[in-house]
Amino acid sequence: MPSARKDPVVGVVGATGLVGRELVELIKRRRLRVGELKCFSSGRTRAFVSFHGRRLAAPAPSERALADCDLIFLVSSDEVARMYAPALAGRGVWVIDDSAAFRLDPKVPLVIPEVNADALRLDRRLIAGPNCTLTGLAVAGAALHRALGVREVRVASYQAVSGAGKAALGELFSQSRALAHMGLRADGRAPILREGSCLVLPRAIAFNAVPQIGRFGSDGYSGEETKVAAELRKIWSAPNLKISVTAVRVPTIRAHAMAAWLTLAQPLSPARARALMSKTRGLTLHASGSYPTPRSAGGKMGVFAGRLRQGTGPRELALWIVSDNLLKGAALNSVQTAEVLLKKGWLKHR
Amino acid sequence: MPSARKDPVVGVVGATGLVGRELVELIKRRRLRVGELKCFSSGRTRAFVSFHGRRLAAPAPSERALADCDLIFLVSSDEVARMYAPALAGRGVWVIDDSAAFRLDPKVPLVIPEVNADALRLDRRLIAGPNCTLTGLAVAGAALHRALGVREVRVASYQAVSGAGKAALGELFSQSRALAHMGLRADGRAPILREGSCLVLPRAIAFNAVPQIGRFGSDGYSGEETKVAAELRKIWSAPNLKISVTAVRVPTIRAHAMAAWLTLAQPLSPARARALMSKTRGLTLHASGSYPTPRSAGGKMGVFAGRLRQGTGPRELALWIVSDNLLKGAALNSVQTAEVLLKKGWLKHR
Repeated sequence: MPSARKDPVVGVVGATGLVGRELVELIKRRRLRVGELKCFSSGRTRAFVSFHGRRLAAPAPSERALADCDLIFLVSSDEVARMYAPALAGRGVWVIDDSAAFRLDPKVPLVIPEVNADALRLDRRLIAGPNCTLTGLAVAGAALHRALGVREVRVASYQAVSGAGKAALGELFSQSRALAHMGLRADGRAPILREGSCLVLPRAIAFNAVPQIGRFGSDGYSGEETKVAAELRKIWSAPNLKISVTAVRVPTIRAHAMAAWLTLAQPLSPARARALMSKTRGLTLHASGSYPTPRSAGGKMGVFAGRLRQGTGPRELALWIVSDNLLKGAALNSVQTAEVLLKKGWLKHR
Repeated sequence: MPSARKDPVVGVVGATGLVGRELVELIKRRRLRVGELKCFSSGRTRAFVSFHGRRLAAPAPSERALADCDLIFLVSSDEVARMYAPALAGRGVWVIDDSAAFRLDPKVPLVIPEVNADALRLDRRLIAGPNCTLTGLAVAGAALHRALGVREVRVASYQAVSGAGKAALGELFSQSRALAHMGLRADGRAPILREGSCLVLPRAIAFNAVPQIGRFGSDGYSGEETKVAAELRKIWSAPNLKISVTAVRVPTIRAHAMAAWLTLAQPLSPARARALMSKTRGLTLHASGSYPTPRSAGGKMGVFAGRLRQGTGPRELALWIVSDNLLKGAALNSVQTAEVLLKKGWLKHR
């Protein structure tokens, strides 16, 4: 075992958020080689996190404190990422950023290790992790895309409220409690929520389905839908991929689900597709007639797919994909990326 | 005003179910010409319903009692429909059946009045109403199909729990209450439900999304998905339509939503599509950037669509459709069909 002194110093910015807490937990569970762990808040408040049974202070970040680290996980906003990531990477710090700030920057590798670890480069120290919705789709379809070429993708998502952060989750909880308290009406008419119960999400989310995640662009697509499309093209190196996404928030707590249709360059039977997909690391393919749900996949590692069957024709496959948005969709993917850097010997204590 | 004596005698079988109660209410609200209203249970228990402030007994049905009616609304199971519908229609009673028993029978008109009222025939007294999921899609896409021809359809549904009946709704309510009582965990891990809380639906539905409605066939499609495909082909008179459906139950109370992609025979801009669709009776098209949700459309008449935009290419449109599964998806459609029969002068007191 290398001594702790030689292991890299790792910082987590946003350690007290939903993803940050999972990330700190994963560093411990996966025994990531960490000489020292430094937790930071997202810059507004000092807070505390627990690590290996110890209570760690999470002060507001500063460039000086962050530059002392060998690797920084950024699990915060686009703004915080823009403030620190390029400067730190320029100083030789590895930065794995989970925000959307740099994902489409051609100089920044956008990485899901199971899919495109080969995009990592020793001289590109700023690395982006993808949108949490995209991750399941990119992993589940990777083998099909590699073997035959995916030409068209249609996806409808069923996104968990934790994807919108702690405040949104609080909104789901308070609305659900209020509705349960009022008594759900037997005729099923939606009870009225009091004013102000819906501040973070664009509509009441309890007992609802809301087809808006982000702002709408002039083409009618929401920010989330546009991100998923652009990031999938980048991760799959498929600039001409035709893709249309409908991103919908549903009242689930964690794990994003999606119904997807993938059109291939050539016909492929569901049985052959299953054989190809079964080789993808990190993907659990349910047997026919079985399927994952947000409740079954929430809190679990990796990506789960099921309901694999022919779509509208022999070149098309339909499937159902679920993965935990806070884990494989964010924290786990970042830790796995760090594991690749360690394995390559690129990430060292300086 | 015609005297009540000359108005048809109308029976409702299944009057105490979720759809039955809406139907009795709609007969009143829409002032359907009814000489006498006879309510029946679904055959197991005698019950009561309220109509015009009066309490009506709903005894178990019998062929003799039903044959005294001029029109029977069947809002019950496939079994009850098979037991009564053909015999009654053979005796000259108009039967509007909301079950799946006869929908695909080539001798039975499957009718959504806004879409294919022309399928009604004086000598075909047994009429089927379509699957509640299909209705919104069939109405929203009708004008596009008529004008240009829809060639391919992909649909992912977000179906309300009331579509599975009163017992399923009870399951959603009790699970939601139990989870709210336990306290939703701040880390978003799904709390464990006690054994037996999930009996009607195939998985726990509170804070979940379950991609199974009906049994799976050998092609991997569920019963619900197969029904939607077959019924849309029949209602649109489009036997060669390529269609792939993913039917998903979500924890909403009423109103089914769906994300749909329609591929046309020719290119069509979203603006032109909007102009065509705006002429469809019973369809409310939200402005760009606005959209219906199950909460906004629940309890409302008609079909609501929004998020109309180009899909993966110029021949494809993506849209979001919501309609109340108990109203336009069932009770309202049946009442509207009766209204057409009355208007044509075909439905009379014998």
